[in-house]
Amino acid sequence: MHSTQNFPQEHLPALLSQYRQFVSEELFPIDLKVVQGPFRSFLPQLETLRNKAKSLGIFAPHLSKEDGGVGLNLVQFAQVSEILGQSPIGHYVFNCAAPDIGNMELLHLFGSEEQKQIWLAPLQKGELRSCFAMTEPAMPGSNPIHLGTTAIKEGNEYVINGHKWFTTAADGAKFTIVMAVTNPEADSPYQRASMILVPLDNPGYRLIRNIPIMGEAGEDYLSHGEVEFVNCRVPVTNLIGKEGQGFALAQERLGPGRIHHCMRWIGICERVFDLMCKRAISRKLDPEKPLAEKQTIQNWIAESKAEIKASRLMVMDTATQMQALGAKAVKEDISTIKFFVADVLMKVIDRAIQVHGALGITDDTLLSFWYRHERGARIYDGPDEVHKSALARSILKNYLGK
Amino acid sequence: MHSTQNFPQEHLPALLSQYRQFVSEELFPIDLKVVQGPFRSFLPQLETLRNKAKSLGIFAPHLSKEDGGVGLNLVQFAQVSEILGQSPIGHYVFNCAAPDIGNMELLHLFGSEEQKQIWLAPLQKGELRSCFAMTEPAMPGSNPIHLGTTAIKEGNEYVINGHKWFTTAADGAKFTIVMAVTNPEADSPYQRASMILVPLDNPGYRLIRNIPIMGEAGEDYLSHGEVEFVNCRVPVTNLIGKEGQGFALAQERLGPGRIHHCMRWIGICERVFDLMCKRAISRKLDPEKPLAEKQTIQNWIAESKAEIKASRLMVMDTATQMQALGAKAVKEDISTIKFFVADVLMKVIDRAIQVHGALGITDDTLLSFWYRHERGARIYDGPDEVHKSALARSILKNYLGK
Amino acid sequence: MHSTQNFPQEHLPALLSQYRQFVSEELFPIDLKVVQGPFRSFLPQLETLRNKAKSLGIFAPHLSKEDGGVGLNLVQFAQVSEILGQSPIGHYVFNCAAPDIGNMELLHLFGSEEQKQIWLAPLQKGELRSCFAMTEPAMPGSNPIHLGTTAIKEGNEYVINGHKWFTTAADGAKFTIVMAVTNPEADSPYQRASMILVPLDNPGYRLIRNIPIMGEAGEDYLSHGEVEFVNCRVPVTNLIGKEGQGFALAQERLGPGRIHHCMRWIGICERVFDLMCKRAISRKLDPEKPLAEKQTIQNWIAESKAEIKASRLMVMDTATQMQALGAKAVKEDISTIKFFVADVLMKVIDRAIQVHGALGITDDTLLSFWYRHERGARIYDGPDEVHKSALARSILKNYLGK
Amino acid sequence: MHSTQNFPQEHLPALLSQYRQFVSEELFPIDLKVVQGPFRSFLPQLETLRNKAKSLGIFAPHLSKEDGGVGLNLVQFAQVSEILGQSPIGHYVFNCAAPDIGNMELLHLFGSEEQKQIWLAPLQKGELRSCFAMTEPAMPGSNPIHLGTTAIKEGNEYVINGHKWFTTAADGAKFTIVMAVTNPEADSPYQRASMILVPLDNPGYRLIRNIPIMGEAGEDYLSHGEVEFVNCRVPVTNLIGKEGQGFALAQERLGPGRIHHCMRWIGICERVFDLMCKRAISRKLDPEKPLAEKQTIQNWIAESKAEIKASRLMVMDTATQMQALGAKAVKEDISTIKFFVADVLMKVIDRAIQVHGALGITDDTLLSFWYRHERGARIYDGPDEVHKSALARSILKNYLGK
Repeated sequence: MHSTQNFPQEHLPALLSQYRQFVSEELFPIDLKVVQGPFRSFLPQLETLRNKAKSLGIFAPHLSKEDGGVGLNLVQFAQVSEILGQSPIGHYVFNCAAPDIGNMELLHLFGSEEQKQIWLAPLQKGELRSCFAMTEPAMPGSNPIHLGTTAIKEGNEYVINGHKWFTTAADGAKFTIVMAVTNPEADSPYQRASMILVPLDNPGYRLIRNIPIMGEAGEDYLSHGEVEFVNCRVPVTNLIGKEGQGFALAQERLGPGRIHHCMRWIGICERVFDLMCKRAISRKLDPEKPLAEKQTIQNWIAESKAEIKASRLMVMDTATQMQALGAKAVKEDISTIKFFVADVLMKVIDRAIQVHGALGITDDTLLSFWYRHERGARIYDGPDEVHKSALARSILKNYLGK
Repeated sequence: MHSTQNFPQEHLPALLSQYRQFVSEELFPIDLKVVQGPFRSFLPQLETLRNKAKSLGIFAPHLSKEDGGVGLNLVQFAQVSEILGQSPIGHYVFNCAAPDIGNMELLHLFGSEEQKQIWLAPLQKGELRSCFAMTEPAMPGSNPIHLGTTAIKEGNEYVINGHKWFTTAADGAKFTIVMAVTNPEADSPYQRASMILVPLDNPGYRLIRNIPIMGEAGEDYLSHGEVEFVNCRVPVTNLIGKEGQGFALAQERLGPGRIHHCMRWIGICERVFDLMCKRAISRKLDPEKPLAEKQTIQNWIAESKAEIKASRLMVMDTATQMQALGAKAVKEDISTIKFFVADVLMKVIDRAIQVHGALGITDDTLLSFWYRHERGARIYDGPDEVHKSALARSILKNYLGK
Repeated sequence: MHSTQNFPQEHLPALLSQYRQFVSEELFPIDLKVVQGPFRSFLPQLETLRNKAKSLGIFAPHLSKEDGGVGLNLVQFAQVSEILGQSPIGHYVFNCAAPDIGNMELLHLFGSEEQKQIWLAPLQKGELRSCFAMTEPAMPGSNPIHLGTTAIKEGNEYVINGHKWFTTAADGAKFTIVMAVTNPEADSPYQRASMILVPLDNPGYRLIRNIPIMGEAGEDYLSHGEVEFVNCRVPVTNLIGKEGQGFALAQERLGPGRIHHCMRWIGICERVFDLMCKRAISRKLDPEKPLAEKQTIQNWIAESKAEIKASRLMVMDTATQMQALGAKAVKEDISTIKFFVADVLMKVIDRAIQVHGALGITDDTLLSFWYRHERGARIYDGPDEVHKSALARSILKNYLGK
Repeated sequence: MHSTQNFPQEHLPALLSQYRQFVSEELFPIDLKVVQGPFRSFLPQLETLRNKAKSLGIFAPHLSKEDGGVGLNLVQFAQVSEILGQSPIGHYVFNCAAPDIGNMELLHLFGSEEQKQIWLAPLQKGELRSCFAMTEPAMPGSNPIHLGTTAIKEGNEYVINGHKWFTTAADGAKFTIVMAVTNPEADSPYQRASMILVPLDNPGYRLIRNIPIMGEAGEDYLSHGEVEFVNCRVPVTNLIGKEGQGFALAQERLGPGRIHHCMRWIGICERVFDLMCKRAISRKLDPEKPLAEKQTIQNWIAESKAEIKASRLMVMDTATQMQALGAKAVKEDISTIKFFVADVLMKVIDRAIQVHGALGITDDTLLSFWYRHERGARIYDGPDEVHKSALARSILKNYLGK
């Protein structure tokens, strides 16, 4: 969607201001309460906010105007994403949160007309939610060619069997896209799997549990499901793209997805940095001496500032390149920002907690939420180690024969 | 208590084996479930384990035999503490968990006969629990001379007013020891506060809430209370030691307390290290290649091993010195182990999570519990920064005039 | 000079290629030998290279065409500086090395016509060298308001007395600019010093020694002098700018200077990174297994790549801002890049050494030269600690009153 | 030698005091000058110090009394080594420096009577020096089974051909022990090499150069030679031990050798730590404010103190175990201390340099010497990476089958 967008660049500064204002006036006052949950009890309030965003014309920044969005391209959206990321409910309210945004991209690019009409249209309007079932507990996520889930064609149906987890936001979703092996005999291990759309009222599908993660199982959008498919039958028309294209589509989905994640993380960093600075000023060691005068605190603030700036420049540079040259051309950069920014994120959060002292480990600030829920940032979409090795091997290839 | 103990050193190896066996056979199979809670539902089961420990003669390792314990001195107890620390319920089952153990020490050394009879005796037997109300939300815990809580003598009573938090295990406790200013005019700021015992059925006391910490408010022993004292009246005989001795007693309490914490942390490190190694061996990247073959994983295992060994040697050395020379003589060493071991603990846990991948951030292993609940280790009993500065200033004092 | 330059942006890519080619064809083959010294023996060869650069029209990239240069603005020059930095003799050959480049800027902006004619003109042509005497052994360089060197006006002369060191390249220089206190009674400590030009054949000046630094005293351009001024008399017309302007001018000099240093460091990083990759590929652990297959090596390559990219983006962003808004507007960014890039530099060098094994610590590669000579990067022009504190205090100022 | 020593433990404290006094009174005043060189010019002065040490009965602490030494066991010697390590000439003066000490051990354990009489006896007395030729430029030192040097038996002679470097102290040595392949067909790659003693006046031997290392080629004892053997003929009786035992002997040599290195490094850390503290106290940021008041400096002092203490406890623990159980039993511990202490060493030196500012990078203190000459500590005797992998694999072996 991004590539075909046409929001006028000269209006961007004003638009960004609008987002900033919305986030600080509408989301900051309530977001801590929302993540304390229960999430479902806040759905009406969040719906009101979505309507407000729609009425302001800033809902769904990543979608084209025809689809009810703002029409931002990737680089423009990245800047909005940074702003929304400052609140844990920012992307949700604007209907550009994972996994829905990824599914919108997939269906937009590769969905059939029927899939678009039935599933994509309401998804884009925020009338329903979706999820994405790829990771399996029994297989290393870092090596996605190993999949245990199968989809066997019988007549006009696929019969799906498999066990997935970290199916984000499965609880309350209306459909999932599942990655399953359809062509086990394909020569290339990268051409064995397909993506299939499964409506979640299918009797062959079951949400086993919302996985308790870092102290919370959560619910609805704020949850990660463990799910199973037992003889789950769907029409073959539920296939997305072609058979065996699963990995190719997943790569399409992950490229911009990592930009989105990184910009969201930078947004988190900024909010956390702001909390850290406020605390440093307001907390007094004695009536005359704020914490801010301690050089260790100053070091953390300076280092965080530097690292956040580095992160932003790198991600924006990657987004700009990707927009110009496509996702494949920036594979190295994607790996780079994935591990670099995730590391910065965790360091900044950790420092902010330490600056807050005992308060920092309570759930009375957002720090605890992010400390817990973003620990996964160094793991999902490829752990640090995988991206580092991939980057290095790609670089070293150029030295062979030299 | 430790200093007067007399467990024969030659029997120690056999005793340590007994603890190791108990912990691995009785606690490891259930501890993950217990911390998943609700804690109260496990109280009968934990009571059974305590009785088993009593029947084996290994209950309350830190208490003298007359008091129903094993009679270990500080150095011996440190070794037991490391073993018990491998399970998050180890110290609780053996009735040597903070804050009760600290209160036992306080009352043993400074309690009146009446206090000992009414409160200490059942506390030592595990018949009731206690808590310790020192930290205040409005004051920096790192500068304990700032206290807002006051205890004003009126006739034969103290009238206590104040707001405390991180009153560990207040939920379900029968009494607390509260630190309050009794002598605001004392010359030294270190002589203004006193420790006063408050039974928790006192109408002037209120448990405001179990503070939600890192995703969990918890309950009973596994909780940290926010409490208030409003015109809370107790007889002056509830004073512990003398008026103005609060800080002196707190120091007495904290010295061995930090040894206990550190050895418990090392126990955690060992369990976590064991989980990390098992995962490295059992997780296959492909059928032929366990995670253990990746050099990054090997680096983490090697570095963790080294740091854990360094931690143990330093804490044991400090315990040995403290036992021989008293807590004051090892002030520098206490600061050293406090920040060194807390740092190692968090690094080892973090590496183990990364080795576990997605599983590592779920609550399906103990890693998440410790990642969240031990983040406070770098904060409580003096944050890293305070201990580092204190250590450095103490060292540099010797260079003045040189 | 930069701000008034006018090299056409569309010709920049071709120009950068020219520099890249020159550096790799002319400098890489000899630079290791040159730094092994003795430096003076290479002066004729370096002079030949300068003439070649002149004949190619790429000499003195930072100077205007009228002054015999290429006419690059700050942002363009930064990109050239990165290329030249890949060789330790790059900036020297192109006559844009510190301290000469800083002195050219000073004299260009603030020199009298006479000073420009006598000193600046031949300096720009590379006919003589200069130095800058600011740092004093007895005073903390991180606090430049403390100066022991004085210049007392007597009639038409300043009488200068003082002891300086780290007067880079004093050996063989024809003049120095010295920072000395002229107005000790000025209200502001920042208005007490002035900059005075001193020809080095002055009998009151003495080069005490080339300071042995990290194993080498060096000579000529590759040296750092310890110098003294004893009743050193110069005409008052040797004052640069006005009395009391010393610090203001020093700040002017340091702003772009830090951009230059940072881009040079990034150039070093690239050369070092290249050496590291080549070594990883060529060194075999056994005939089948290059070092490059070790994951630790891959980690270092990936992390270095990420950090170098972050550094470049940050410095270029700062240069762009500085060019548009002036040095004052980017004070925070200057501090940021100063400590961030210096840290990256030392980390990348250190990793490359480790990859080279025993060879890495010999002087048979450039790694040893940079490991030793760039350790100062974290110290000169303000140590890390000073820049971090300055940055943090500047940020925190915005939080006061919030 | 250590295992058979018998210095009475109760006299150790007094002996250690003697060493401390000697080092601080005799070595500290001159050692900076000695390492500034040229080394040979100090030989007479060093000889005088050796004689003084002999007259005090503290020369050669590692040798038995019959051999003119003090008779310390490994654990006792480790403590002396820490003291001597505080001066870069400590071990040399007491004739217990590498590589001589390793050669003494080798010849003591495995030398023939003739070898002992001709070479070991004068070596022990300090009448001649030796060296050890093992590392080869063309082969990865981390994988010692790859050796290019060969020794082919012809009649009663070995004919040695090969190229070695990092032959420490070859310049001025009277003999070397060379590692060469004698049995290329042996089944195990660990049984192909032998150690052969070569007198250095042999016409087949040549010192190509003293390798310039980190800015200095050095000379005599303070140098590392690149050497070659061209048809170098020695009698077969120059074999040490048996043919094919080269690696076995090298392991014997390296075990205690790593203890010695580590304790020497800890000695360096202490001297460096002392310099850092003195500087922190004496350097004033302004007349009222010593550097010591900056929290960053305090952090470095505290962290260094902790890490040095950890290092000492670990090395002493390893030495104690090794003395009791032999080198094989502590293989894991040896790897652990090798990478742990080398890392601490470099960190402590780096911090001390930063505390010294510009002075820290000059050769006016010992910091520069150690920063340069100990960078190799993370490389020689097995780089960090090799020891970490070895340790991890050894640990993980215990988890197989679990």
